[in-house]
Amino acid sequence: MTLNPADTGFVDHLRAVLPADTLRPAEPRYLEEPRGRYQGQAGVIALPRSTEEVAMLLRAAHAAHVPVVPYGGGTGLVGGQIMGAAEGPAPLVISLERMTALRGVYPQENVIAVEAGMILADVQRAAREAGRLFPLSLAAEGTARIGGTLATNAGGVNVLRYGNARDLCLGLEAVLPTGEIWHGLSRLRKDNTGYDLRNLLIGAEGTLGIITAVSLKLSPIPAEQGTAMLTVASPAAAIDLLAMARDQLGETISAFELIHRQGLEFLRETLPDLRLPFADLPDWCVLIDLGLPKGRSPADALAALFETALDAGLCADGVIAQSEAQRQALWSVREHIPEGNRRIGSVSSHDISIPISRIPDFIVEGGKRLATLGDMRINCFGHLGDGNLHYNVFPGQGKDRRAYDHLRDEVKRCVHDLTHEYDGSVSAEHGVGRLKVADLARYGDPVKLAAMRAIKQALDPHGIMNPGAVVPLAD
Amino acid sequence: MTLNPADTGFVDHLRAVLPADTLRPAEPRYLEEPRGRYQGQAGVIALPRSTEEVAMLLRAAHAAHVPVVPYGGGTGLVGGQIMGAAEGPAPLVISLERMTALRGVYPQENVIAVEAGMILADVQRAAREAGRLFPLSLAAEGTARIGGTLATNAGGVNVLRYGNARDLCLGLEAVLPTGEIWHGLSRLRKDNTGYDLRNLLIGAEGTLGIITAVSLKLSPIPAEQGTAMLTVASPAAAIDLLAMARDQLGETISAFELIHRQGLEFLRETLPDLRLPFADLPDWCVLIDLGLPKGRSPADALAALFETALDAGLCADGVIAQSEAQRQALWSVREHIPEGNRRIGSVSSHDISIPISRIPDFIVEGGKRLATLGDMRINCFGHLGDGNLHYNVFPGQGKDRRAYDHLRDEVKRCVHDLTHEYDGSVSAEHGVGRLKVADLARYGDPVKLAAMRAIKQALDPHGIMNPGAVVPLAD
Repeated sequence: MTLNPADTGFVDHLRAVLPADTLRPAEPRYLEEPRGRYQGQAGVIALPRSTEEVAMLLRAAHAAHVPVVPYGGGTGLVGGQIMGAAEGPAPLVISLERMTALRGVYPQENVIAVEAGMILADVQRAAREAGRLFPLSLAAEGTARIGGTLATNAGGVNVLRYGNARDLCLGLEAVLPTGEIWHGLSRLRKDNTGYDLRNLLIGAEGTLGIITAVSLKLSPIPAEQGTAMLTVASPAAAIDLLAMARDQLGETISAFELIHRQGLEFLRETLPDLRLPFADLPDWCVLIDLGLPKGRSPADALAALFETALDAGLCADGVIAQSEAQRQALWSVREHIPEGNRRIGSVSSHDISIPISRIPDFIVEGGKRLATLGDMRINCFGHLGDGNLHYNVFPGQGKDRRAYDHLRDEVKRCVHDLTHEYDGSVSAEHGVGRLKVADLARYGDPVKLAAMRAIKQALDPHGIMNPGAVVPLAD
Repeated sequence: MTLNPADTGFVDHLRAVLPADTLRPAEPRYLEEPRGRYQGQAGVIALPRSTEEVAMLLRAAHAAHVPVVPYGGGTGLVGGQIMGAAEGPAPLVISLERMTALRGVYPQENVIAVEAGMILADVQRAAREAGRLFPLSLAAEGTARIGGTLATNAGGVNVLRYGNARDLCLGLEAVLPTGEIWHGLSRLRKDNTGYDLRNLLIGAEGTLGIITAVSLKLSPIPAEQGTAMLTVASPAAAIDLLAMARDQLGETISAFELIHRQGLEFLRETLPDLRLPFADLPDWCVLIDLGLPKGRSPADALAALFETALDAGLCADGVIAQSEAQRQALWSVREHIPEGNRRIGSVSSHDISIPISRIPDFIVEGGKRLATLGDMRINCFGHLGDGNLHYNVFPGQGKDRRAYDHLRDEVKRCVHDLTHEYDGSVSAEHGVGRLKVADLARYGDPVKLAAMRAIKQALDPHGIMNPGAVVPLAD
């Protein structure tokens, strides 16, 4: 499929039909990403104000065979928002940043509808103002836009209770690659009228169209929230504790995060002012977050859990927040782990998921295999309740990161091979983007890959949408 | 697209490659459906024992351009399992009834994996034996097979708390129309590796392939369950009560069912031995079901809700079950409503969903419009918490159903037009099947319909899978 650049001729054509300030020359911020691994290109940046303008842009690109890169908050970690020169001619980059309107909020229905460019934290705020909770919460929420979080099916810390972005979406309005608008902004909980186009676009990372508006499920705001950090001897003990916690507390557990000693050591080294809850750092600990209806004390519920867990030998020590400030302090530890990692500088980071009961063996085996490759430190942490680990590999103590450059691919391959052997996924919540297309080709089910290519070809016959992302080329 | 019948030549070809007892001549039970509206046909019935045998069948049908009808428990209400003579030549009907194996149960992960032919009640039982709950529950659960409930994205009474079939599925193994096997039986909660083929097959009603095995989410069994039936003055009061209940009780509400006086009157008339909880039948009432963790009393929680609702003027009377027997008695009322309807005999039944806050107006307006068509009784009941109404229309008191035959299409059209005006769905939980293909063409988004056709063509290029179901032909 030959694509054409978004060149002067194409831009002149767009200028003739769109308001004057819709188009801008490429600026560096649209061509970079947080980890600095990809360098983008753009013939022109478009900042549409309406779904109809997005449709006009896609109709033009479809007709002219010009590649299109949809752009949300730019916080993606796998290069989905960055099309390099190797992947085709300079694209039209369409940023949704001007499409931030609240379309409607329906507290009685627990639904909010917003345009795709609204920043995630603003969605949370709008829900809260209506007396409701929008539970999707992740590190980049102050910058990420809701359309991008849907396009990548983002996860975060509340998935255990509320589900990931996919689970929180009721409907979509989107422009398909041919420039047609799909009006699917449903507020319905049940709708069995044909194929599930919504879930097809969610997680397609802009390769099947551009999400322009979303309707989202809200929840009641838990009246009482509580947090505890409990030490556990091992990941196996953490999983037993999770089962015990679910038996005692049902769906009220909103987060169950595993933390490794290595992460706490990195924090002590790189952020010495951050207060850690344990003087003697435990090998493993878990952060448990609880949201309860009015009149029940989360601290009491967590204390009861702690006691049962102590009796069962599942945990040895623990801190239960007795105030909102203490709660925030515990969360601050968890939330700073990525920053500690960044300051140390990883050899390779992995966003993987593993069937929960196999995680303990996976962690042991991973340590063994990596030890054969060199002197490395592993910080394995993450959303244990979802089976989602951030398995990040760092240079040995006192070693220079650059000395590991030649090992990076081998480390990644080692971790991903092992993940595959354990029936896991090499992309749990960050998406495929461009970083993991080769992994998809390697580990993905070939029948599924063929189906993906057929669907892509059917909906985007000229292959203009985000070329190079998600869909591996056929052999 | 020309299709060929599953004739002697084709059957001989199958006989040569499959075990002798795989094939059977057509039997009436595969060619009928519960409402008696459709009459099927079949060249041959295949009863495969393995996914590989399903794949052999589909490869042969794909090569020979022979239509295929996947068959589960045969309980579908919209004719999805019945291909008539008008839709093409006699098909190969593939029944999954021999593929009922438990593939694995993982209590620690809250996951079960079973073959698609397992009966829904057996899935529930297998989960319970592992100390877990599989919450999907519907009237036909003793006959429906899990593959069919996924293919139709079935709902039922526990959707409010646990979601519909789609929400409960983690992974699928399926044979695509070309006869290739997709191995997607994942146990992972998070997996962002490419397009969501799982959700595309769920709800496709066998038009994009045959589901052969499924992995499902389980939940802890609530330690304490409680049920109440409260009278309310109107649907609007019921919705306010739902909001109040969610504020007080969070996600512990597993069902919130609206019941109309008409339904209770039908029960009194057709099933006089069934004990009704109110001597004076209320205009409206709701059935509320609650599941709580150990140590909390559902009866107390429901009594507290009742009291607050009384104070707020939302309800006037109520019964709170004080024993499991009383609980079953209340549920029995709800569960017999469809039987009462059957005995009266409807003019037209509708499985619709409406944005929850618009339901009160919808019900008023629906009554007005139907009154202009003739003397009819309306029994509007269902899963209020999901916005899902079973809006069923019956002959006037003492009138013969046959006198309404000429009105049936007009009644359906009236209800569906109104549903569409209210941003609702004409197929909430029963699927499209063949009954609602014309509705989909009429009310569906044309861009979505075009995308559906493109996807169907991409994955089933010969159009062999369940011809006539779900996908309207292009204009």
